[in-house]
Amino acid sequence: MIKVAIVGGTGYTGVELLRLLVPHPEVELTAITSRALAGKPVAELFPSLRGHCNLAFCEPDTEQLAGCDLVFFATPHGVAQAQVPELMRRGVRVIDLSADFRLQDIAAWERWYGQSHTAPELAAQAVYGLPEVNRDQIAGAQLIACPGCYPTAIQLGWIPLLEAGAVEAGQLIASAASGASGAGRQGKTELLLAENSDNFRAYAAAGHRHLPEIEQGLRRVQAEGSTPASVTFVPHLLPMIRGIHATLYARLQSDLELQALQELFERRYADEPFVDVMPPGSHPQTRSVRGSNMCRIALARPDNRDTVVVMSVIDNLAKGASAQAIQNMNIMFGLNEKLGLESPALLP
Amino acid sequence: MIKVAIVGGTGYTGVELLRLLVPHPEVELTAITSRALAGKPVAELFPSLRGHCNLAFCEPDTEQLAGCDLVFFATPHGVAQAQVPELMRRGVRVIDLSADFRLQDIAAWERWYGQSHTAPELAAQAVYGLPEVNRDQIAGAQLIACPGCYPTAIQLGWIPLLEAGAVEAGQLIASAASGASGAGRQGKTELLLAENSDNFRAYAAAGHRHLPEIEQGLRRVQAEGSTPASVTFVPHLLPMIRGIHATLYARLQSDLELQALQELFERRYADEPFVDVMPPGSHPQTRSVRGSNMCRIALARPDNRDTVVVMSVIDNLAKGASAQAIQNMNIMFGLNEKLGLESPALLP
Amino acid sequence: MIKVAIVGGTGYTGVELLRLLVPHPEVELTAITSRALAGKPVAELFPSLRGHCNLAFCEPDTEQLAGCDLVFFATPHGVAQAQVPELMRRGVRVIDLSADFRLQDIAAWERWYGQSHTAPELAAQAVYGLPEVNRDQIAGAQLIACPGCYPTAIQLGWIPLLEAGAVEAGQLIASAASGASGAGRQGKTELLLAENSDNFRAYAAAGHRHLPEIEQGLRRVQAEGSTPASVTFVPHLLPMIRGIHATLYARLQSDLELQALQELFERRYADEPFVDVMPPGSHPQTRSVRGSNMCRIALARPDNRDTVVVMSVIDNLAKGASAQAIQNMNIMFGLNEKLGLESPALLP
Amino acid sequence: MIKVAIVGGTGYTGVELLRLLVPHPEVELTAITSRALAGKPVAELFPSLRGHCNLAFCEPDTEQLAGCDLVFFATPHGVAQAQVPELMRRGVRVIDLSADFRLQDIAAWERWYGQSHTAPELAAQAVYGLPEVNRDQIAGAQLIACPGCYPTAIQLGWIPLLEAGAVEAGQLIASAASGASGAGRQGKTELLLAENSDNFRAYAAAGHRHLPEIEQGLRRVQAEGSTPASVTFVPHLLPMIRGIHATLYARLQSDLELQALQELFERRYADEPFVDVMPPGSHPQTRSVRGSNMCRIALARPDNRDTVVVMSVIDNLAKGASAQAIQNMNIMFGLNEKLGLESPALLP
Repeated sequence: MIKVAIVGGTGYTGVELLRLLVPHPEVELTAITSRALAGKPVAELFPSLRGHCNLAFCEPDTEQLAGCDLVFFATPHGVAQAQVPELMRRGVRVIDLSADFRLQDIAAWERWYGQSHTAPELAAQAVYGLPEVNRDQIAGAQLIACPGCYPTAIQLGWIPLLEAGAVEAGQLIASAASGASGAGRQGKTELLLAENSDNFRAYAAAGHRHLPEIEQGLRRVQAEGSTPASVTFVPHLLPMIRGIHATLYARLQSDLELQALQELFERRYADEPFVDVMPPGSHPQTRSVRGSNMCRIALARPDNRDTVVVMSVIDNLAKGASAQAIQNMNIMFGLNEKLGLESPALLP
Repeated sequence: MIKVAIVGGTGYTGVELLRLLVPHPEVELTAITSRALAGKPVAELFPSLRGHCNLAFCEPDTEQLAGCDLVFFATPHGVAQAQVPELMRRGVRVIDLSADFRLQDIAAWERWYGQSHTAPELAAQAVYGLPEVNRDQIAGAQLIACPGCYPTAIQLGWIPLLEAGAVEAGQLIASAASGASGAGRQGKTELLLAENSDNFRAYAAAGHRHLPEIEQGLRRVQAEGSTPASVTFVPHLLPMIRGIHATLYARLQSDLELQALQELFERRYADEPFVDVMPPGSHPQTRSVRGSNMCRIALARPDNRDTVVVMSVIDNLAKGASAQAIQNMNIMFGLNEKLGLESPALLP
Repeated sequence: MIKVAIVGGTGYTGVELLRLLVPHPEVELTAITSRALAGKPVAELFPSLRGHCNLAFCEPDTEQLAGCDLVFFATPHGVAQAQVPELMRRGVRVIDLSADFRLQDIAAWERWYGQSHTAPELAAQAVYGLPEVNRDQIAGAQLIACPGCYPTAIQLGWIPLLEAGAVEAGQLIASAASGASGAGRQGKTELLLAENSDNFRAYAAAGHRHLPEIEQGLRRVQAEGSTPASVTFVPHLLPMIRGIHATLYARLQSDLELQALQELFERRYADEPFVDVMPPGSHPQTRSVRGSNMCRIALARPDNRDTVVVMSVIDNLAKGASAQAIQNMNIMFGLNEKLGLESPALLP
Repeated sequence: MIKVAIVGGTGYTGVELLRLLVPHPEVELTAITSRALAGKPVAELFPSLRGHCNLAFCEPDTEQLAGCDLVFFATPHGVAQAQVPELMRRGVRVIDLSADFRLQDIAAWERWYGQSHTAPELAAQAVYGLPEVNRDQIAGAQLIACPGCYPTAIQLGWIPLLEAGAVEAGQLIASAASGASGAGRQGKTELLLAENSDNFRAYAAAGHRHLPEIEQGLRRVQAEGSTPASVTFVPHLLPMIRGIHATLYARLQSDLELQALQELFERRYADEPFVDVMPPGSHPQTRSVRGSNMCRIALARPDNRDTVVVMSVIDNLAKGASAQAIQNMNIMFGLNEKLGLESPALLP
């Protein structure tokens, strides 16, 4: 059994970790920390866990965390970089679901997140936890930077095309939309049901923090000498709880038939347990991955012109956060990668 | 391994059975029938099952079904009563999720469902699959009539009070509401998103088919000589997918303190794995049972007057249909009653 | 033209007042106050008003307000009772949408609202703004206490029965549900879309502030010597924005046929422009009154037993607040009662 | 008073026409036809119209229609082209909300709509009812082809850029999303609430019927000699009722600052009563136009690169269909263009 703790368990990625870790056969959950709610039973905050989890939130305690095999950080950015170094020194493995260690370019991180980075050496050491790209390094990693939700959906949608150099990398367009759980569990007026139900809008059109992570990830898989991937990324807020849908537009470099593109994707993801390339003509639905770690992808070439459209869906809290974190854990600890992640999506 | 087939797998109870049976460790799924869609891969209709279920829908074939240990009927009423008798003769066990065998009063069945009943002797033989009442008989049953969704939520909410004779049984009020999945997967105008989103309404206020099932169940648990339970039941349609919320009103027979009522419920359900009596002051939320087999119940006594209010929530497709069917299966086959039903609800 | 100001225009009843007052042909809107947002253009907070309203929020200024013919208070409770007395002295007419002047029993008000009442003499003087009961007094009133949303839907649903003494007034049950806009525009976690979409729950089951207002209103219409109306009232939160649905249960005193009850309602509301008694067999939908001042009512007598069910729907922000306030204004100023309120509901 | 009839009043554009025409001060509504529902009161189908509209659906009767000043067609494609010629001969003016007369290229029409066109000469004669482009011709037209919903949002978003030649017209990307009312009022399984709530997906990614209409409209406003506008258009289905959001991506031809682009839009639409260019940094919300004829537009230039993003929102049933039809009517009959369309959007 892997001894596990969660730092910062009061948000949506926290409760999603709990939903998946509680029935995981190889995990022993030992602590869930929250300064604000220390002492409060977890199941009081999240009634879905009544009868499943008897722990109470506790103050973060380095000694206790240091006794774990693995600590998940489900905290706002800035927290992990302060606490992880000590845990690393003491040999604990860490999966960070926040943005703290995702960017190699520390200056870029500091610009987008508006604060100094206090552990840049760990950012350099962290392995980016996208198993479809980094499975081997993940296995041996001590520190995983778990990818963001948009970056997961978007990278998985474009990787085969960029690896193959099939599209003009300098002019990529990512029009993506997320359920409201992606904005977190904080009581902000603009996230009220009465503000967002029966409503749709873009946000952060002038620039979103996930852009540098997306471009960093895409550039890593491009062949040397390629035009570096450059993405116009506009996120939108959906009147629903879970799910990310990315609609990706790219111009084909050469006259690749849709069928050839389809085969490119099918080959690339043939052995991936959590990427599903759907048949031509499909339109992946976010509900088809609700609560599951799956990413479903379909391709189109509208009106047979020179633009290829990739549609990629994930559950922002699952493959976009907590379930992907558990996939990383399974790889790190030599378990079956699918352990605890086998349930089909909740549909309807 | 239990060899299992599903008759009528194209509706929401069908896909919910599949979601839960596919990862069930003791089940081998052998066939899912549908006359209309025979030949079509199940995962084409329900993309959530891609990678989880490779079966195609098939024509119902008595020989094949007769080779199973257990057949689930997830069909409209009228179908099971035609096909079950032959399967019973050949020793197959059956769990019927339709209304065919729920009522002992065949005349009442025929009046409410508007057709003749062709297998009244099986209705007499069927065990009503509410484990909280009939666990022992379920274990030995060959034919289970799986309870309706409203009847499950409502009976579990009132049973402790009626067993104890604590309320005026002749004047019960059940105001209940269901998500739209309860109305099925048929393309009816009145079930469109554009008709029901941001909308709420009662339906069948003059009389709903679940009424006789509710009253039959409640009367069974009353002490002899009691005023037979009589219920005013009004169902409502919620602008959401899953969940039933029953708000139950009853007048107290004597001056029972809320605390005494609370203890009555806690005692009654102390050993029930799927009934959760929440602390006083709680308001159970349908999302706290989304996708799970749990029923959560809370009590109130508004303004300390003589009316007790019971709030009872279930997932209409889970404890209200398919997960309860699997709970029955687990009991029938001597398995751990919770097997395959351990995952917490999907929240948020 | 009536010179009008709104005190407290940043909530949902504020923006709904603006939506309806802006095109009202007899209204000149002069000021909308907000301490917190003074200086901010109203249309910046509510983009729906761009091109319709050029005012900015301003600090409340007694001189300015005193120059108006009419001031609406769309403030939290406690505010109007502090500011209204001075305006009254200066001859301004006031329509208060808050709870400050709704209850005659000041002790009850102080108990339910948890604070002292500073203007009890005005509560005694205020006219309860339910035109279907108090039209004549409204016409001459200087101060209107505009009814709460639940109280409006529930009183209109029961008034004909209680006036006629047709039901057992001591055992009334009101199971009601509201869209999330009823909870206001404050950034509370429990009102997030991610917490409430695809979810349903009761709240305040042990006692809700609208109960004394409901009982006060019902008792006023009962014949002398009747058992005073006593209501068990449980409100619920709907996963949608607008709409209240009240399902009202009462036991018939005598064997009144459904048709006789129907006629009772039709007679009672024959001349009411904003109460629609639907034909027997109807189930009023909240969307059928979305954005309109209409209350729609239908009756049922389930299974022909001795309980009558009244279903009553309103838009909580319209007939339940701002549109009803304008109906009151029209009456107070001798205008056509329907002026500015003629648009049909927004359906779909 | 303009004598008006509606052919095909049972769909969502029909009921939206009724909502807006009923209180219109210059309109006398004389007939609403429906073969299927002839004889049924309109308010029985649409309870929002109870008390507002006493008409019943009637069989289409050429004599009756020929007695009108104006006939709206709110019919599926193929119907208007059969019935309009006779009405035209008899001098009736027609506003067709269907696709029948939108395309000048009849071969393209026949290819996209899969049937022969029976009145191509009328298509040539019809005026495309986008007032922001064709106001003068609309005033004198006998036959208006009312624009589609996506084409309205998309054209209004790009027209200033294409008129100015500011972007690469050959590589336009339109990622757009519509509420479910855009798919009509037919009982199709894929439009059920239980299928679409909490779900998001693209559709018709390989090619949608609105593409040729969009490209035709854009090319008309381009300067001669320009590269003809070529659009990659992917529509998506939103889990909500009303609203279209178009996110438009185009590469700048030259280094135009965002401020210059902003001024371009503000100048272009300065006199347009129903196009609102929002300030830089805005993100238009669909709810800000719910039920109104407004189109709201905002611009962004993500990360200051060479792609300009235009966000354009309308209500698909209002500016995208019925309200725009009434705007056309107002222009045709010399009325104030805003008559009957002054109400602000319904928010929240």
